[in-house]
Amino acid sequence: MRGDKTPVGILGATGVVGQRLLALLDRHPWFEPAWLAASDRSAGKAYGEAARWRLSTPLPERFARLPVSAAEPAGCPAKIVFAALDAALARELEPAFAAAGHAVISNSSALRMQADVPLVVPECNPDHLALLERQPSYARNGGFAVTNPNCSTVGLVMALAPLERAFGIESVFAVTLQAVSGAGYPGVASLDILGNAIPYIANEEEKMEVEAQKILGRLTAGGIEPADFRVSAHCNRVGVVDGHLESVSVKLKRRATQAEVAEALRGFRGRPQELELPSAPAAPVLVTEAADRPQPRLDSEAGGGMAAVVGRLRRCALLDYKFSVLSHNTLRGAAGAALLNAELLRAEGRI
Amino acid sequence: MRGDKTPVGILGATGVVGQRLLALLDRHPWFEPAWLAASDRSAGKAYGEAARWRLSTPLPERFARLPVSAAEPAGCPAKIVFAALDAALARELEPAFAAAGHAVISNSSALRMQADVPLVVPECNPDHLALLERQPSYARNGGFAVTNPNCSTVGLVMALAPLERAFGIESVFAVTLQAVSGAGYPGVASLDILGNAIPYIANEEEKMEVEAQKILGRLTAGGIEPADFRVSAHCNRVGVVDGHLESVSVKLKRRATQAEVAEALRGFRGRPQELELPSAPAAPVLVTEAADRPQPRLDSEAGGGMAAVVGRLRRCALLDYKFSVLSHNTLRGAAGAALLNAELLRAEGRI
Amino acid sequence: MRGDKTPVGILGATGVVGQRLLALLDRHPWFEPAWLAASDRSAGKAYGEAARWRLSTPLPERFARLPVSAAEPAGCPAKIVFAALDAALARELEPAFAAAGHAVISNSSALRMQADVPLVVPECNPDHLALLERQPSYARNGGFAVTNPNCSTVGLVMALAPLERAFGIESVFAVTLQAVSGAGYPGVASLDILGNAIPYIANEEEKMEVEAQKILGRLTAGGIEPADFRVSAHCNRVGVVDGHLESVSVKLKRRATQAEVAEALRGFRGRPQELELPSAPAAPVLVTEAADRPQPRLDSEAGGGMAAVVGRLRRCALLDYKFSVLSHNTLRGAAGAALLNAELLRAEGRI
Amino acid sequence: MRGDKTPVGILGATGVVGQRLLALLDRHPWFEPAWLAASDRSAGKAYGEAARWRLSTPLPERFARLPVSAAEPAGCPAKIVFAALDAALARELEPAFAAAGHAVISNSSALRMQADVPLVVPECNPDHLALLERQPSYARNGGFAVTNPNCSTVGLVMALAPLERAFGIESVFAVTLQAVSGAGYPGVASLDILGNAIPYIANEEEKMEVEAQKILGRLTAGGIEPADFRVSAHCNRVGVVDGHLESVSVKLKRRATQAEVAEALRGFRGRPQELELPSAPAAPVLVTEAADRPQPRLDSEAGGGMAAVVGRLRRCALLDYKFSVLSHNTLRGAAGAALLNAELLRAEGRI
Repeated sequence: MRGDKTPVGILGATGVVGQRLLALLDRHPWFEPAWLAASDRSAGKAYGEAARWRLSTPLPERFARLPVSAAEPAGCPAKIVFAALDAALARELEPAFAAAGHAVISNSSALRMQADVPLVVPECNPDHLALLERQPSYARNGGFAVTNPNCSTVGLVMALAPLERAFGIESVFAVTLQAVSGAGYPGVASLDILGNAIPYIANEEEKMEVEAQKILGRLTAGGIEPADFRVSAHCNRVGVVDGHLESVSVKLKRRATQAEVAEALRGFRGRPQELELPSAPAAPVLVTEAADRPQPRLDSEAGGGMAAVVGRLRRCALLDYKFSVLSHNTLRGAAGAALLNAELLRAEGRI
Repeated sequence: MRGDKTPVGILGATGVVGQRLLALLDRHPWFEPAWLAASDRSAGKAYGEAARWRLSTPLPERFARLPVSAAEPAGCPAKIVFAALDAALARELEPAFAAAGHAVISNSSALRMQADVPLVVPECNPDHLALLERQPSYARNGGFAVTNPNCSTVGLVMALAPLERAFGIESVFAVTLQAVSGAGYPGVASLDILGNAIPYIANEEEKMEVEAQKILGRLTAGGIEPADFRVSAHCNRVGVVDGHLESVSVKLKRRATQAEVAEALRGFRGRPQELELPSAPAAPVLVTEAADRPQPRLDSEAGGGMAAVVGRLRRCALLDYKFSVLSHNTLRGAAGAALLNAELLRAEGRI
Repeated sequence: MRGDKTPVGILGATGVVGQRLLALLDRHPWFEPAWLAASDRSAGKAYGEAARWRLSTPLPERFARLPVSAAEPAGCPAKIVFAALDAALARELEPAFAAAGHAVISNSSALRMQADVPLVVPECNPDHLALLERQPSYARNGGFAVTNPNCSTVGLVMALAPLERAFGIESVFAVTLQAVSGAGYPGVASLDILGNAIPYIANEEEKMEVEAQKILGRLTAGGIEPADFRVSAHCNRVGVVDGHLESVSVKLKRRATQAEVAEALRGFRGRPQELELPSAPAAPVLVTEAADRPQPRLDSEAGGGMAAVVGRLRRCALLDYKFSVLSHNTLRGAAGAALLNAELLRAEGRI
Repeated sequence: MRGDKTPVGILGATGVVGQRLLALLDRHPWFEPAWLAASDRSAGKAYGEAARWRLSTPLPERFARLPVSAAEPAGCPAKIVFAALDAALARELEPAFAAAGHAVISNSSALRMQADVPLVVPECNPDHLALLERQPSYARNGGFAVTNPNCSTVGLVMALAPLERAFGIESVFAVTLQAVSGAGYPGVASLDILGNAIPYIANEEEKMEVEAQKILGRLTAGGIEPADFRVSAHCNRVGVVDGHLESVSVKLKRRATQAEVAEALRGFRGRPQELELPSAPAAPVLVTEAADRPQPRLDSEAGGGMAAVVGRLRRCALLDYKFSVLSHNTLRGAAGAALLNAELLRAEGRI
């Protein structure tokens, strides 16, 4: 059965996002992990030995037995390579894999803002994939890189996309309460976060402010023309395991009633839903009427961890509307985001 | 020695704020608790028996032995009565105590927005105390009520006051990460908040939006004319014991450099500092340069829990500046706020 | 399809355990909730309105629409009634339902130690069910009560049962680190447990010390003859949502190597496994070799939350062996325990 | 004023224990930090720059300005050197400093069990200090090393010492719930401990089992003869910042009533109390009658963080008595322990 599936590789397979990817790929109908790479320290060991498995679902036995390879294009047998690397490492390895002819599905920030690299949330801007044809390696050997946004950007953008479509957006305020899994492992020290909150995450605000504009921008002959709204982001870390919660205010270009805004969010569908991609949630944005939701511990897994949950939609005294939005930072915000990108590429015939 | 001190009463003495008040009053140079009142369930018991003491400093023995009285003006021997009650109860009891000639120093929301009731942060609007003369009971028997703001308002207002003075404020965006002690005891269920965040606190946003305007408003013959800036607040609960952290963006009326803004915050002083009130911090606003501060667990006790700590001052892409501000919600945000009001009243010769 | 299932009732349906029961019964092959009862405050409302649903899986729509009935035998159409009540209420209601001819599957402590009431962990003492025939109501109208142990007893007993069988047990030392969900909702106040641990849970130690003896005791003509080992328990509450972790030392009657002890635990199987009951885990006790497991957040869901996970088996300097054991307190320790008891009763032809 | 004080050095000054030491030494009547050493990465910087200060009390300005030296005896001007190092580093550096003539007051495990090194809790075994004369360097140049126990041993031993004196001890069970600060910084990853508990701390159980015997052992001509009781320890990590809580059962050699046991604990005094050492708590062991104490967040600071708090004293079904004991792991369990050792050495005229 697995012989029919497309083999895929994972760069950074032992990390938090790599582990999530493996868990998602365990029963994936199209893809099968065939090559796992990690740091030199791990290379040569069996994956089960090299990885400190941190998920509550068990590590599938067949993955535990896979050898960990060195993170070099040389020995990688798979066309599709998921990259779950630190930005510094990604900056070096992702272009190398693309240059070697791989389809690099990246979760890092290294290439996201590069002009010829698609930064894609499949429900929001599937057409941006066309950018990949402009990458030098593409013509040469079919290699390219595609990226998904930062984990704190994705929930925001999923809520903004239908509003941008329906009403246009003028400006956005977003304050995050981010889970510790977003910082990888070991990541945030317990002494820093137990019973505490930290009003700072390095580079996070900058990423949110520009990524949202690129994703909701327009593909032109000259590249992506960023959306013209401004975003002001404040990023905080809180003692939550999974699920980034954001307090958002938004000013629209056209007047809309609260019911219309709710309807736009609720009715939002995109290519993944049309194509019925395996990892696509039925509805990308869920809108709850409960007074005190969404909450990370209760709502992060909504839509298999692939939906954004919006709640507390109400008038804003400053901009037009305010709401809270939650999304699972290592699923929709990382591993699942990459996987959905790969599914979209495949369904669109690009890999 | 204690015989020289002014006896004070406490309504709601067994609650979280009542306990903090007692701890603050333990070695207070001016005031000595002489009358403790709580619900009927507690009345008649010794305080040490009636209260489930929740502070890490021990309950002073002489308070443990005080009897708990019924919450009625009848038997209360003290002119000054601190009120740390739920709003519903406060709405009934505070006017009754004022009518009976007491100086009610209230921490509840019941009377805060009433036209003739001062809502005071001593560093920000000490002149508003004059309002109390307009209360009907004042002429009759010297009774009145004075209030302090909601625990999530006070840190915000302390940071806004010097900016309003120096530059004028046009609009404010504030998102809170609030500690559980703000909800009293038992308050927030552990099942709700462990490893979680909740994007809702009943009535909190409404309070923040109007209280800030009243406090920074102007005392006129016709009452308080609210400040003309608009505030948009989002309130979240997080798993922190003490200390409300807020992400704030602010638009100023007059142009100011970042250095000028920092200087205005740092240089802020008010009547409590002039008068050297016993509970006044040396500087009401501390400004930190550390990249990741203020943090509730590390900074809430700054200035004896009476200072607001501002950090991460920087440009805002939407308004002019953004920063984080932290204040201790049961000290500066409740018990200490009430105590400082009482000290101001006394130093100004009003009690 | 559901028409073929046996209708069941739930007493205390809105609480933490009641909610878990509903979640477990959502797709149960044999049973279908047909009658939900709760306190008078809830009676008359639809369940979806009356219950503050606290699980991360959504409340099934058909349960949300069920009306909440008053907690009286009168209107209850189901023979089988799960009882998830506080002990005080249970002491009154459970006998009333049994007297009215119901099969009461109880999770409370009210009747557990009563001589004619089976206290059953299906893998450990399924034969104790025979006790129910000695209950007065049984002959009269087929009514009876069966109980499962306290949530902190069950994991311990599951680990002790195979050791008692294989080697005999002389004495047991058990210290618990218990999750907050064991205290129901609202249960433990966040101010009590955030960043804290509490070395006390009312009546918990007493329950553990006698329940283990009854469960591993012998059914005789005169009733249950308790097992003759002694148990010393210390109970602590920690800031964990689900999963009771216990540090256990045990002295055996017969000498055994560590490998034999591990083998006894690993090889343990009972009636639920033989009968392939729907809620039975494949193996009731899992033994992990990982140095730092079991851990509540990672291992509580093992075996669908119905397995006990033993780790760190090693020599004890005082008794013979020591180990840690973890079990999910609201699944194997409450809702799942009751359900497995009901499945056993049904498979044994007793209901 | 400070010129009159004895200058001291600190090895490992930037770590969690080093920071605590500096905070304790800020207003110490006898000692003044004059030399701070840390890893090569920090050497050369000002302390305020090199250390990531993690305490809620501010870093004293004069320490912030001190330069960080390399961790070598060469440049160290102080006779007394506190060593707050990892065991591996300590094994190398502590003997080197002792050999160079320093009085090394060590908090690490490196030399604790060495036959000629005193392992001292000043209230329990001050006479063991005499061992230091048997160290080779002592005769040569007056250099020596003295150690304090592991942070999980000290609270236990403080509770055992008065029982050993009064009744003799036969055996001890101890299960710990240990705070994360015990693991240093960054130490325990938040992903590991948030909403979780971990039944393992490397080497901790072994330390507890032998250190207690050495501390309560007898100084003889041949060295320390370990106390003859056996200890069985289980060590768990929990999501608490400061304060190790332990569930302890103890078997006594001589029969004692519960009142006698309580009295022995309460009445316990030692050399630090006799000598009125600056860091000595008035009573080393506090006994609480509250049903649910001691608790880390509420009781760790008792006696300035230098007392052990015992609660829930009651009969044990297996041994004689059981109780919970709490002590502050970075004060009494580390920095304060070392400081009290230094004070004792000084008061005894040994330095």
